[in-house]
Order: sequence, then C-alpha cells, then structure tokens
Amino acid sequence: MFRPEIKVLDCTIRDGGLANDSHFDLQIVRAVYRACCEARIDYVELGYRNSKEMFSPEEFGPWRFCDEEDLRRATDGIENPGTRISVMQDAHKAVAEDLLPKSESVVDTIRIATYVKDIDKAIALENAAHEKGYETTINVMAISTESDWELDPALEQVERESHVAACYVVDSYGALYSEQVDYLVQKYQRILTNKEVGVHFHNNQQLAFANTIEGIIKGANFVDGTIYGLGRAAGNCPTELLLGFLKNPKFDIRPILDCVAQTIRPLQKELDWGYMVPYMVTGILNQHPRTAMAMLKTSQRDDYRTFYDKSLDLVE
Amino acid sequence: MFRPEIKVLDCTIRDGGLANDSHFDLQIVRAVYRACCEARIDYVELGYRNSKEMFSPEEFGPWRFCDEEDLRRATDGIENPGTRISVMQDAHKAVAEDLLPKSESVVDTIRIATYVKDIDKAIALENAAHEKGYETTINVMAISTESDWELDPALEQVERESHVAACYVVDSYGALYSEQVDYLVQKYQRILTNKEVGVHFHNNQQLAFANTIEGIIKGANFVDGTIYGLGRAAGNCPTELLLGFLKNPKFDIRPILDCVAQTIRPLQKELDWGYMVPYMVTGILNQHPRTAMAMLKTSQRDDYRTFYDKSLDLVE
Repeated sequence: MFRPEIKVLDCTIRDGGLANDSHFDLQIVRAVYRACCEARIDYVELGYRNSKEMFSPEEFGPWRFCDEEDLRRATDGIENPGTRISVMQDAHKAVAEDLLPKSESVVDTIRIATYVKDIDKAIALENAAHEKGYETTINVMAISTESDWELDPALEQVERESHVAACYVVDSYGALYSEQVDYLVQKYQRILTNKEVGVHFHNNQQLAFANTIEGIIKGANFVDGTIYGLGRAAGNCPTELLLGFLKNPKFDIRPILDCVAQTIRPLQKELDWGYMVPYMVTGILNQHPRTAMAMLKTSQRDDYRTFYDKSLDLVE
Repeated sequence: MFRPEIKVLDCTIRDGGLANDSHFDLQIVRAVYRACCEARIDYVELGYRNSKEMFSPEEFGPWRFCDEEDLRRATDGIENPGTRISVMQDAHKAVAEDLLPKSESVVDTIRIATYVKDIDKAIALENAAHEKGYETTINVMAISTESDWELDPALEQVERESHVAACYVVDSYGALYSEQVDYLVQKYQRILTNKEVGVHFHNNQQLAFANTIEGIIKGANFVDGTIYGLGRAAGNCPTELLLGFLKNPKFDIRPILDCVAQTIRPLQKELDWGYMVPYMVTGILNQHPRTAMAMLKTSQRDDYRTFYDKSLDLVE
C-alpha cells in the first residue's frame, strides 16, 4: 500500500508511559527518537504535556509533562530528517498555559486526547494550541463505548470549531472488529469533510495491526504505532509491522528493528505488555483494561475463568 | 457473527507438534481434547497420521503417527458431546494403508495437507480415506507462493475428483493481508461450487485472527485455531479469540481459558512460539519460517537487521 498522504506516528514513549507512569530513562527516549528519525517516520510522540497540578511530579516521570528542557535533552544532537515531534494533552488533565509559543518550543504538533463528554475542553485546548502556532489533532478515546447520538454532534463540533489536521478513532479498549472500523472511519470522513481521519488501535484481540490496515483501506491517513507494540496492557499496533506493510520507499524498517533488539525487548524484564487472556477478556467484553491489570497483580492471576465470569457480570 | 454453518477446528496438538516434533505428553493431549469437548468445539485434531517409513518413530513423538491405541489413550473416559476427531496426512509423507476402515477407528475426519504440486497425491489419499468411510478435507499449504495458473487447475481437480467437505486456504508463511484473503476465498468459492471453504492462518504479522474473520465474512465456514495460538514459529489463530468472536451460543469459552492457564501457558517454559521479529520478517517477505527458526537458535538471535538484509537477498 503506497499512498504518500499516509503519515505514521510512533507513540512508543507516550503510550508506553501508561505502563510505567512515564518513567523512561533518558537514553531510552533518545534511542526511540533516534530510531524514528532514522526510519524517517513522520511523527514521534515523546509523551504528554499534562498539568503538574493534576499529576504529581513525585509520582509520574518527566514524559508525563514533557518540559521543554527534557525534550531538548531527548533530542539534542540527533539528526532529524523531518520527523515532527508531538506531545499529547489530555482534555481533562491539561491546561493551555503549559504551552509556549511554537517558535520557542521543540514541539511541532499537539494531540488532544478526549472522551466525547469532554469535547468542549478538547476544542478549547486545541484552539489555544492552534493560536500558539502548533499543528493539532483531536483523538477521541474509548470510541467503542460511544453511541452515535453523542459522537456525531461531537464530530460536527470538531469540524466546525477546530483547526485539526486530523481527528482520530481511538479504540482504547481493543474492542473493535473490522466492520466497526469501517463504520467509524466512514462516519468520520462524512462529518469531517476538511480533516484527515486518524486511527489508533489496541491489541487486546490481536487486531491492532489488522484494524489499522482496515482504516487505511477506508481512507484513514494518520496511523499510530509503537515499537514492538509497547503500551499499556495488551499494547498497540507494532510500528515495525506498519512499516513492513506501507510501501512508501522513504521508510527504512532497519532502525526500528535495531531499536526492538537493543532498547524495547530488554524492557520486558520490568514491563509486562502484550496479548494475555485477561486483556482479551476485557477486549471482547468492551471494558477498560484496568480490571485485567489489577487482576494480573494478584495471586489469582491465572484464574481466567473467574475473571471472565466476574467481567461478564459487569455487562449483564 | 452467528452463522450456524461455521465449524471451528482446534489443531493445537497437530500444529503445535511442528514445534516439538509431536512430543506431547499424554496428559497434555488429554487436557486439550477434554477442553475442546467441553467447549463444544466442532473438531479437534490430535496429530498427523503420517508414515513411519518417512518419519522416524525414534525422532518423532506419537502424535506424528496417531496410532489408534494412542488415540484411544488420549480420549478414553472423556465425555464427548459431538466433537469430531481429525488427523492430518501430508500428501507427500503418508500412505493410504495406514488408515483402518472408519468403523474400526477413533477418527472421524482425515485432512490431507498438500502443496499444489502434490495435488494428485492428495486426491489419491483423499479418495482412499473417503472409500474407507471418513469425512475428508484437502488443505492447500503455502498458498501465498502459488500462482493462479497452477492453483486454479488444482482446485478444479479437487472439485471434480474429490469428495471433500471443505478445501482450505492455508497461509503457511503468515504472509497474507486481508485483500489477498478476500481474493483467495472468493476464488475457492467460485471453483469449488459444491464444497465449503476453510481457512488456516499463521500469526507472523499478527494477522491470523483478523484474516480468519475476513475469511468468515467472505463465506469460509471451516476455521482453524489453536489454544493460545500454540504452533510452530509465530503460531496460529488463537482458538479463544475465535470463540469470543463467534456468537454461536453452543460454544463455551471457559474450558479453553482453563486450558490456557493450566496446560498451554506452562509449555512456554520449553516451547517458544508467538510474535517475534524474525518470524515477522519471513512473513512480510513471504518466506518459510525455517530461516527464522534457525537464526533464533544462534548467538546472533538479536541481530534482526542482518537477518532482514540476508532475507531480502533471498527475494531480490
């Protein structure tokens, strides 16, 4: 599939930060940044720019806040052939004042993550970021739980009131099948006539990469991945699979393969991510993975049957 | 997706036997058989019925041959609500004489695995099995490497000369994307007007489950899985994901979840399967996983870049 409009965004550090409270050592962030630049990936997301009033800097690592000096430490001296740097703001946990004017910042792109109910907050943050000179996106989380009568007006508002380059389908629960991806991407395209559609999928049912391909086939041009799928719970669409699929000759998969071997796989000693039965259960039942993450920290971590029955009780 | 015609076949022991030369302890085979019966899966495949002239019984375990007395030991005393038992014969490594008449056998179904070039051997074995009273299928391996001008006449021959219940698309290399699955399933349906289409996918690119869904959407009614994806190299479509997707109320996912926890995950101490970069590389390059399996046994097992470049040399 070679469609030059397709933009790949690697959010290994940002999404992976949900698995370790954004406590990555600086050399890990530098290695991921370097690999993305060398692979000529379009965007690399180095963390959140969330508020220190709403997240404790005692508890969370630097990549939950992405101070400009930390971003400079992460990127200084690494050749960048045009990879744009993004950070994410959570609509309900970030403030506009934390953004410098674009001309004084390392950052190119601000992505606003939001639930449908917070769409006004998201648009306010987006407007502020846009005014300060940044490219912007709005990423609608937990999309598998939203009904049309709430989602459609939110998308209409994004179309009318924002300046985003793209608006994303975010399957936070790893619950979507390909037919639902079709439905949502087509809906976004219908409502957001002047904006690109983005897709971000989780791997609870081993469908993150397949759903990303499905989104691309239906016209999504912004696609997210993380190296070796690193991310909270079951993780994400692996960036290396995306590069293997996309035939744009500008991409080079080799630096990403090196990064898997040298930087990401060694993290498996301390971080547990990927396909596991409890994450699959929350995926098929369209639930947040937090119950699965909690269950995996108990001595009953192998009692899948009880977890399945308890999770069923939550829906029935 | 509830279409009562869809039949699920669990081939954990048969396909997993490619990862350990079919050396499963009897209690493992019994646990898998029991789980499939309790889950009311349609078919369970307990191994190969290959020839002891062509495989050494010194080297290979009992499930490469599936002697009737071994099958009886694996199934005796376990209540079976209607799960059919299958074994596989490799077209080029099995002989018709190794089959008893159906009335004297534990087996219900013989599946013949074949390359296109061996289709005459496959049909001869199929005819023999059919005459002895078995239900049969023909499974066309390495389908991603076959060209239409060889595959089409082979399928026409299966349609004309065999009595199979189903003929399978088998993506041995884990190389297919959904559009190729569409193409192949539709081709099979067009040529095999009186037979069902089956699908069997490998997980090199994390697409085994997604491609199975795609096959089902296009009309495939025989689908293969293995518990927790156990299988050679990257493994297979996980049976538990299939049961989570299929809405046929007769299936019960719980015995499969128990089997993952108690029987299959503990095998990870001795067997290595699942998504790994070398298997991904052979998948995206449409190659047999044997080079990746060999590479992973060397001290250079983390040098993905060199492996990628060497594998590229094989295609260019």
